[in-house]
Amino acid sequence: MRRNKPKYHQIIDAAVITIAENGYHQTQVSKIAKQAGIADGTIYLYFKNKEDILISLFQEKMANFIEKIKEVIAGKQTAAEKIFMMIENHFRILSQNPKLAVVTQLELRQSNQELRRRINNVLKEYLDFIEQILREGVESGEFAPDLDTRIARQMLFGTIDEIATTWVMNKQKYDLVALAPTVAKLLLKGFLGEK
Amino acid sequence: MRRNKPKYHQIIDAAVITIAENGYHQTQVSKIAKQAGIADGTIYLYFKNKEDILISLFQEKMANFIEKIKEVIAGKQTAAEKIFMMIENHFRILSQNPKLAVVTQLELRQSNQELRRRINNVLKEYLDFIEQILREGVESGEFAPDLDTRIARQMLFGTIDEIATTWVMNKQKYDLVALAPTVAKLLLKGFLGEK
Repeated sequence: MRRNKPKYHQIIDAAVITIAENGYHQTQVSKIAKQAGIADGTIYLYFKNKEDILISLFQEKMANFIEKIKEVIAGKQTAAEKIFMMIENHFRILSQNPKLAVVTQLELRQSNQELRRRINNVLKEYLDFIEQILREGVESGEFAPDLDTRIARQMLFGTIDEIATTWVMNKQKYDLVALAPTVAKLLLKGFLGEK
Repeated sequence: MRRNKPKYHQIIDAAVITIAENGYHQTQVSKIAKQAGIADGTIYLYFKNKEDILISLFQEKMANFIEKIKEVIAGKQTAAEKIFMMIENHFRILSQNPKLAVVTQLELRQSNQELRRRINNVLKEYLDFIEQILREGVESGEFAPDLDTRIARQMLFGTIDEIATTWVMNKQKYDLVALAPTVAKLLLKGFLGEK
């Protein structure tokens, strides 16, 4: 597994910085190598090309992201609590990693359709995880029995993604985590059953 | 006004087709000229460069979009009805213009930050329009008095945008307009005041 080799993570972390600072299209593999403090050729022992670095970076960070969120919701009983913790931690992870936030909110929006398809494949794991919590909420009777969990999942992800992108476009000037309660409350009102 | 010149719209419409079929980065101005059936040089009488064509295209289509939506909501009394009509017509316009949908949902997501800023400036008029309807709903007492209209606007736009992008990524295979009632219901439940 290349992921276990020591320089793998060093290259990934250098790529986040380089791509956030220069933009994906203006980033050359040699710039990432320089940032990582290694020879250009070494990168090709780990990655095929720049696109492979971008996709691997997203896979790696997404895996951490989901692991972290699974951790924080592990002790929560209700689907509503889980959704709230998920939103709060989504915002927290981006806030704590300003350069990663630039990469996920701007640089991973590539219009090249094949690259976009590969990016969406990585994202799918997170979307499925969101939908699983929504289904649990329907099954437990907490959410409306007729909740369309596929649409609800797109609503939840679309909302937090738009709010995170707006925050990045505004130079991350305000406290993103502080928005979580308002965002969660609005979304959950939509999901809850009639009382 | 260049917009009143006859070939302006001819070039814009050719650009939608060419960019949707080839991708923005793979589109040369000469390809757009060929699609429009005019000489390359003629394009430069109307537009500075390819970026100017993309931004003008978006301005032009966004103006039509908002005009159309203002028309359909003109006779509606409640903010909830206006929101529903807005969502339905957002989906309808994209459904009726498959190539424009590819351009707005994929090709206008440019990671270049300066270009992105110009695209967002065009989008802002639509976002302001959404927020105005939300404010009307709060003022009339139809929506919750403490509704954060800025967050609600990002929620509404983020949701319909994500749903439209998912539809485009799925090759526009299903009926997008048919999703409007479900989407509007979920969003409006979040916006409404306690009864």
